[in-house]
Amino acid sequence: MNGASQSAETAQAARRIMARADALGAISETPGALTRTHLTEEHRRAAKLVAGWMHEAGLAVWTDAAGNVCGRIEGAGPELPALLLGSHIDTVPDAGRYDGPLGVLLAIEVAARAAPGVLPFALEVVAFGDEEGTRFGTALSGSRALAGSWDDAWWDCTDASGISLRTAFERFGLDPRRLPDAAREPKDLVAYLEAHIEQGPFLEQAGQPLAVVSSIAGARRFALTVTGRAGHAGGTPYELRRDALVGASELVVEIERIGQELDVIATVGRMHAYPGGVNVIPGRVELSLDLRAEFDADRDDAWGRIQEAADQITALRDLEWSAQETYRADAVQCADWLQQAVEEGIRAACGDDPLTLWSRAGHDAMAVAGVAEVGMLFVRCGNQGVSHSPDETVSTGDVALALDAFTAAVRAVAERYAARS
Amino acid sequence: MNGASQSAETAQAARRIMARADALGAISETPGALTRTHLTEEHRRAAKLVAGWMHEAGLAVWTDAAGNVCGRIEGAGPELPALLLGSHIDTVPDAGRYDGPLGVLLAIEVAARAAPGVLPFALEVVAFGDEEGTRFGTALSGSRALAGSWDDAWWDCTDASGISLRTAFERFGLDPRRLPDAAREPKDLVAYLEAHIEQGPFLEQAGQPLAVVSSIAGARRFALTVTGRAGHAGGTPYELRRDALVGASELVVEIERIGQELDVIATVGRMHAYPGGVNVIPGRVELSLDLRAEFDADRDDAWGRIQEAADQITALRDLEWSAQETYRADAVQCADWLQQAVEEGIRAACGDDPLTLWSRAGHDAMAVAGVAEVGMLFVRCGNQGVSHSPDETVSTGDVALALDAFTAAVRAVAERYAARS
Repeated sequence: MNGASQSAETAQAARRIMARADALGAISETPGALTRTHLTEEHRRAAKLVAGWMHEAGLAVWTDAAGNVCGRIEGAGPELPALLLGSHIDTVPDAGRYDGPLGVLLAIEVAARAAPGVLPFALEVVAFGDEEGTRFGTALSGSRALAGSWDDAWWDCTDASGISLRTAFERFGLDPRRLPDAAREPKDLVAYLEAHIEQGPFLEQAGQPLAVVSSIAGARRFALTVTGRAGHAGGTPYELRRDALVGASELVVEIERIGQELDVIATVGRMHAYPGGVNVIPGRVELSLDLRAEFDADRDDAWGRIQEAADQITALRDLEWSAQETYRADAVQCADWLQQAVEEGIRAACGDDPLTLWSRAGHDAMAVAGVAEVGMLFVRCGNQGVSHSPDETVSTGDVALALDAFTAAVRAVAERYAARS
Repeated sequence: MNGASQSAETAQAARRIMARADALGAISETPGALTRTHLTEEHRRAAKLVAGWMHEAGLAVWTDAAGNVCGRIEGAGPELPALLLGSHIDTVPDAGRYDGPLGVLLAIEVAARAAPGVLPFALEVVAFGDEEGTRFGTALSGSRALAGSWDDAWWDCTDASGISLRTAFERFGLDPRRLPDAAREPKDLVAYLEAHIEQGPFLEQAGQPLAVVSSIAGARRFALTVTGRAGHAGGTPYELRRDALVGASELVVEIERIGQELDVIATVGRMHAYPGGVNVIPGRVELSLDLRAEFDADRDDAWGRIQEAADQITALRDLEWSAQETYRADAVQCADWLQQAVEEGIRAACGDDPLTLWSRAGHDAMAVAGVAEVGMLFVRCGNQGVSHSPDETVSTGDVALALDAFTAAVRAVAERYAARS
């Protein structure tokens, strides 16, 4: 495949990818909205579909000790190190169809095009089971199992029904004691490449279909609690109120102001007032905070400023507040040689010099970076880049370009890898 | 019983009331917190206890067609009109033990002291099953059934599990078609008296145990929805965000400001952001609004100002908002002759000129006012009057005074009733 000429075979594969994304998108825990979380019956059904497509593509298929679906095609020799291609198949609540699955489906098609015994490495595809952390709050737990950076504290994390991750593992048919078997050794890995929708508006604004990713933003997440005192809405005069919700609301407004001022992305995605009676002053509010920035220092500055704001707001209202850090990932650089390979792949498919973007969103590549060098390819999405929403869109034409670019990038990795070996 | 002298029998009855409030407080749907809502298994257990105590007190006991527990002692003749004494046995989430049950337990003890065949009217005690509206959003539905002002639209209200009020009635063993049988005729009623904890700090501040109630605040409740657009927290720059939660938070802060300015009690008790992922910009927020004031015009002015604020906030952020009125009760006056009877009762028990307060909270008396004149007696609660919270307290000494005052108030009603007849 050369230059900007696209084959009928590529167009057909792109339509197949779109149909498969629809098929996965129909597997949901919630009627009328796509929600598919870790170790659920819906996860099992999605994993089974993906395993079947890997098998059709000629891959040897297995489920690893963390529940990730894996497939492998051997290279020009037995037991060669593997180039990993992957992404995730879990979703946020009320999700779109492409965040995660598109990268897995593109990887399967790339592998389907690779004749066994030809590449200077094995090619593996991984469909991670838990990137979003929706069910247990354990983001990237699938890829961290593969990277050997699993945190044993996660076993006791519980979902909304009080089911622990350990119990969910067992009910899914996995053995928590075998979890370390999912970890891969650096010597067995060539690198990791991930294709993903941009989840942002920059490709659409630039009128380009694909971008090279330079780095992945550092992120920190916190569970915040603001505590006051519950009381009867009617009988408690304003001067005696310790209304946790008004204080928490002031904090939400201030978090946005600080984020805008410091050019840090700060989002409160969850907020819930307790006890939750219509005629009861809220005594406690629980909210989440997600911070991300291109540079870790900016992100940490914003957190310092938000803590000061929380101190001031709660002191004025005789409230208390606390924070628990639930997730932290420092910014990850994509390896130069992999950026070059992705750039070469995009140029082969599209003919243009591609845009280079930093990823505002976290990706499995962040975790895999602990055990292998990583590279990423972004695909344009429509509607100003909306994602984590049913309005998420990708065009079949862009998927076709992405497939050709990803295929060419793998070939470019092979050339560079042969030259380096 | 005269003046401020309190008998050993009264002290014993007060301790019995406290023990019974503890027994009811132990019947909860939620472990570690008191929540007992309409037509649940816990409602049934509480109703059974109350019915047993009514029976011990010598009352003829039945459950009416709305699930209210009723008891009756005949007066000096057959089928005389009845003086109703009552309150409710349902609770808010994470409630205290006295809001509602105290009035029912005091009424049972007052009835226990009334010899049958003596009073110029029958004495009835009612334990309403749904004052708070916690489960179905249908506040005062028990007393509105009795007052004949039941709203048939309520049948389709659903609880958090999607169970309709109609289905809950049937599962509880009640026949929705028979609901009108719960309605009472004005000619069969002398009046309604309700004792209740103040749920406010004014008695405690004044150092007095009991107050006469002059009127019950008018209230309106709304379910508000703020709608924006969900999106990925990382990939959506601030200028493209339509974050429903930041807008809703600004509105919460503004609602407090307007309430303070207009001397109207405005409370947001519920707030929940959707879809609720830690890394998803909230596309929708649902919140409740509770407004109450001594005068209906002030309450309605505040609602007008809040609507203007919501228009302005949402316009600036490209959000939308809507409101549904879920409850409306105009202010209710307590009848002068019943206020005088309650005042005489308090003076008999405490010796002092009592405080007169208007009730910031709604009560079953508001609904019963549709079918009978009403009067109310407030009992001091501690901790600055905190209520709708496990910190709700009442002293045994105040309960003893309330029992003597309530008993004397019934006697005063009897004298006035005889003079009026």
